[in-house]
Amino acid sequence: MAHIALQEGVPGILGPMYFRPETARPLNDLAEVLLRGDNSLTRGERELIAAHVSKLNNCHFCHTSHATFAALQLDGGWDVLDAVIDDPSTAPISDKLKALLAIAGKVQKGGLNVTDADVAAARAEGATDVEIHDTVLIAAAFCMYNRYVDGLATWAPPDRGDYAESGRMIVEHGYAATTPPLAG
Amino acid sequence: MAHIALQEGVPGILGPMYFRPETARPLNDLAEVLLRGDNSLTRGERELIAAHVSKLNNCHFCHTSHATFAALQLDGGWDVLDAVIDDPSTAPISDKLKALLAIAGKVQKGGLNVTDADVAAARAEGATDVEIHDTVLIAAAFCMYNRYVDGLATWAPPDRGDYAESGRMIVEHGYAATTPPLAG
Repeated sequence: MAHIALQEGVPGILGPMYFRPETARPLNDLAEVLLRGDNSLTRGERELIAAHVSKLNNCHFCHTSHATFAALQLDGGWDVLDAVIDDPSTAPISDKLKALLAIAGKVQKGGLNVTDADVAAARAEGATDVEIHDTVLIAAAFCMYNRYVDGLATWAPPDRGDYAESGRMIVEHGYAATTPPLAG
Repeated sequence: MAHIALQEGVPGILGPMYFRPETARPLNDLAEVLLRGDNSLTRGERELIAAHVSKLNNCHFCHTSHATFAALQLDGGWDVLDAVIDDPSTAPISDKLKALLAIAGKVQKGGLNVTDADVAAARAEGATDVEIHDTVLIAAAFCMYNRYVDGLATWAPPDRGDYAESGRMIVEHGYAATTPPLAG
């Protein structure tokens, strides 16, 4: 049971978002611009970074959600996701994305872990300053979303298949569209 | 030097916010509603939670900034801050705020660390569901802001006194007012 009185049967982050629409709006606006706004990283690549960090934080809801959103928007779908979950360094993804995932993994442990060498390695594979910035902020943001979802002990559907419908909704309509209206 | 090309001499989170105004807006909107919006926790109490988590994450810029904002808005000022930095359990703050700081400290380590007993202890001191929700989200959000600031190796002024002017600005005008305009 969740730590506060949330609506029954509402999965993951949606429970606290319905509970507190005032904070849901900027949380969804941030996800919208980071994961779906104009970018030289594809939506699938950015969702993969989000899923990877959520896995490192052991957040089942966020990991399965964003792995689903990534699988729906990446060539190779779940096969790529499963390979990244197994070992990003041998997964069938670009060397640039591997270098960005390595930065994201450092940020997950704490911002001070990111070294000049990590950033130089990403730049050597063609990563731009905006891509490096967005990777750091996506990783940092999922250290927030993951803690929000699990710190309130929200309910998460167990299986991948349970996330397919919300996956189709997010891919089609985005995050901002899920913000509940303010009361009154 | 920062990991990406940021404007020289711009402190902490303001560098990446000027670099990427698209993401600065929801980041500031979130801080505005969480730390300054209508709430039964005072602005000073909420800034104290933010400062405490930033200290646990070893983020000098965020800790000194939010400790300054807390000191300016709490009865007792820096004396209270210094006592909380030393040991929250013996600091001259309410038992409710001590219980909320304990929850925030658990969230900093990871959301799954928050127990039913932690929440029951806060509730026994009079904490409401909204106060528990907001404490979890403030702690989670500062796990993001801290990683964003340090993951990009931004520059931080060294001394408390360097933060006094920005403290007066934030206390008077708030976070949303600091969002840079979008280009073009």
